[in-house]
Amino acid sequence: MKTLITNGLLLTMNDSFDVFDKGFILFDEGRIEQLGQMADCPDAAASWQVLDADGDIIMPGFINTHCHLGMIPFRSLADDVPDRLRKYLFPLEQHMTAALAAQSARYAVCELLLAGTTTVCDMYYFEDEIAAVCDEMGIRAFLGETIIDMPTCDAKDADEALVYADAFIQKWQAHGRITPVIAPHATNTVKKDTLLKIKQLSQRSNTPVTMHVSEMDYEMAYFSETYGQTPIAFLDDIGLLEQPFILAHGIFIQESDISLLQKRQVGVAHCIGANTKSAKGVAPIPQLLAGGVAVGLGTDGPSSGNTLDHFTQMKLVANFHKTRWQDRALFPARDIVRLATIGGAEVLGMAAVTGSLEAGKKADVIQIDTKSAAMFPMFDPYSVLVYSAGPHDVRNTWVDGRQLVRDKQLIKADLFSIRKKLDGEMTEFKLAVERINNA
Amino acid sequence: MKTLITNGLLLTMNDSFDVFDKGFILFDEGRIEQLGQMADCPDAAASWQVLDADGDIIMPGFINTHCHLGMIPFRSLADDVPDRLRKYLFPLEQHMTAALAAQSARYAVCELLLAGTTTVCDMYYFEDEIAAVCDEMGIRAFLGETIIDMPTCDAKDADEALVYADAFIQKWQAHGRITPVIAPHATNTVKKDTLLKIKQLSQRSNTPVTMHVSEMDYEMAYFSETYGQTPIAFLDDIGLLEQPFILAHGIFIQESDISLLQKRQVGVAHCIGANTKSAKGVAPIPQLLAGGVAVGLGTDGPSSGNTLDHFTQMKLVANFHKTRWQDRALFPARDIVRLATIGGAEVLGMAAVTGSLEAGKKADVIQIDTKSAAMFPMFDPYSVLVYSAGPHDVRNTWVDGRQLVRDKQLIKADLFSIRKKLDGEMTEFKLAVERINNA
Ligand SMILES: [Zn+2]
Ligand SMILES: [Zn+2]
Repeated sequence: MKTLITNGLLLTMNDSFDVFDKGFILFDEGRIEQLGQMADCPDAAASWQVLDADGDIIMPGFINTHCHLGMIPFRSLADDVPDRLRKYLFPLEQHMTAALAAQSARYAVCELLLAGTTTVCDMYYFEDEIAAVCDEMGIRAFLGETIIDMPTCDAKDADEALVYADAFIQKWQAHGRITPVIAPHATNTVKKDTLLKIKQLSQRSNTPVTMHVSEMDYEMAYFSETYGQTPIAFLDDIGLLEQPFILAHGIFIQESDISLLQKRQVGVAHCIGANTKSAKGVAPIPQLLAGGVAVGLGTDGPSSGNTLDHFTQMKLVANFHKTRWQDRALFPARDIVRLATIGGAEVLGMAAVTGSLEAGKKADVIQIDTKSAAMFPMFDPYSVLVYSAGPHDVRNTWVDGRQLVRDKQLIKADLFSIRKKLDGEMTEFKLAVERINNA
Repeated sequence: MKTLITNGLLLTMNDSFDVFDKGFILFDEGRIEQLGQMADCPDAAASWQVLDADGDIIMPGFINTHCHLGMIPFRSLADDVPDRLRKYLFPLEQHMTAALAAQSARYAVCELLLAGTTTVCDMYYFEDEIAAVCDEMGIRAFLGETIIDMPTCDAKDADEALVYADAFIQKWQAHGRITPVIAPHATNTVKKDTLLKIKQLSQRSNTPVTMHVSEMDYEMAYFSETYGQTPIAFLDDIGLLEQPFILAHGIFIQESDISLLQKRQVGVAHCIGANTKSAKGVAPIPQLLAGGVAVGLGTDGPSSGNTLDHFTQMKLVANFHKTRWQDRALFPARDIVRLATIGGAEVLGMAAVTGSLEAGKKADVIQIDTKSAAMFPMFDPYSVLVYSAGPHDVRNTWVDGRQLVRDKQLIKADLFSIRKKLDGEMTEFKLAVERINNA
């Protein structure tokens, strides 16, 4: 079935930032066929679904370049505790089960779609179950089984995780919407030997790698002391950056790293919310962009960034970068919407496929209600998106031309019953939380 | 009529932060009578309105300590233009009319109430019209006519503005919900002579003063060069801080200012969103609180902070202060909710009247829907409020025990028709914007 949206304010996010102030877009189940001003709108065939946007914003769906879909159970837990990672996260992750990870992912995907996110890049455990959920829910996803040099909830060591990852890649590689990736946890939690095996698997299976890099001050100190180089230079030395590479965080990227990232075409997932809530700092994003490095936005997991919507991230990008670099003209709103859409597609190596409204691209499209109180007046629609809009303003979401959210409700899923089931799956987990709280 | 809310998660925000996890609250049109756990809930009389909160959060309404209600027409205009104040704001303010200011205030008050704000402190022009709007809309308001040493849209000079302010104070002083204040614009836009006249008027009428102070780097440089002191020390020297004083911004407050502010019991309206979007910096709030200075949150005007909701401000307080002072344990969520409620009441000198749920206080109460996707799970309700909630999650709002928002809709006003009328009033204003854009 074809869908025709009329009378929208179309933000294409193409190279010339074309805007159709009274525009239309026509897509089938799959690709965008045509878009432009209403004067050029084709007559609708009887079989088309026609939707009058009534001045709403029509734009490409948001692209979340770094997330942990299985971590909904951790949200709002110990947010302000200094050593949360070791005190809460690692011990509680021992209580993660396949059923809990899958139900968490199901809930997280609901939250993403309701907030207008059409593509997500995830790293977590039980990734095979999570892939089945993403397949079922209709979102576009890059999914990586976490490989870490410690026992986890689904592998006794990194070698077992590598076997899992290998099988996972083979199983999902041919799926149209799901792209398997390999997800070594971080430079300070995965040994060099393991990284070399990961490189081989990535080469052999032609699979991208995603990893937490240059995120921690102690990580930077360790690499400086041990190797006399940055984590990024180290990864390049062992050849890992020659593979397609999605670098998460990069808070402490050094001047010398930037040309290396550009040369290797490494994309950076900028997680401003998680990075600043944890007091770690602000990544040198203006410098990366000036150096020709692709940058997208990531929410990080729900325990780090709390919400999975890109509106929260966009506001934080604006205020943090303007303040950090003391320049109120830095990052005009349009450039921030770019990061949240086509920038993310570039990071994932998908810029030819999604991230902007262009004929021939996948129909990953969202419609933003402009009727909320904070969204008037609209001298600049990009400003309104960055500074005024929120996830509740997303009216409709299509992935691959299939509508998944209609009038702010999920079409094929019921958030309330998914939440109820997730709450039930969390019984053991909540008891473990109590034990830590009382310890 | 009395209202009884049952089965709520009550965050009282009283001195001991009492929480009733399954609680009730009873209030009449005016004051809170009783609150506690459901076990102690009185039987409802037939005449009471009884509302089952079904686990929603019940808390005091937010208090916005600094706003410009007349500035809705400026929202999303030239957000990223370096010299916006002189290029856009001052010239466009010449096109402000009484009708436009009033309609803007009407729209802004709708936005505030829908976002759970029950008290606002405003400084703008045509304040008499704005007071009439606040009276009509039912919000609690501190309102100050701006006094500035330049011709404005409603006064040819500061003396004329002073005459206006004097009459305004006399007219509204006896109103139960509206408190007149005097609003000198800023230390660098109001001369010493004018400030001395303002001090006299404040003394004579027993009226608080609110003012932009220590907000601009050039303001700090000017006072240092001209007087060899900070703007705050200067204001104290001329005796102005001996009056009840609400200091907006204070980004550049110095160590030496803090004891002075404490001694004079000056309250600070912290506008983190406006301050960081304009790349000015982060005020020393932890230091002010440690020094015993009252601090509340302000959105600033809709052109500076863009949204008028305190959820946006709370998130920014968390992430900016944790990052600025490199301490992820700083500002636990509960302390931020405190700033947004009772902290604001302290700044306005209203802590005995509103800002927390306590028997005998004004019934300024809000109910927060906890059903949105981002609000699960809820290990810590304060964390959920700060990191996950948004204005769309406000279900009900009462001011003085009168319900003004029911099920996310205004009861006595229609946002759509108010917007339409405001858009109509903006015709001249929009032409003036076009002229500046094309200049
Ligand atoms: Zn992460
Ligand atoms: Zn202001």
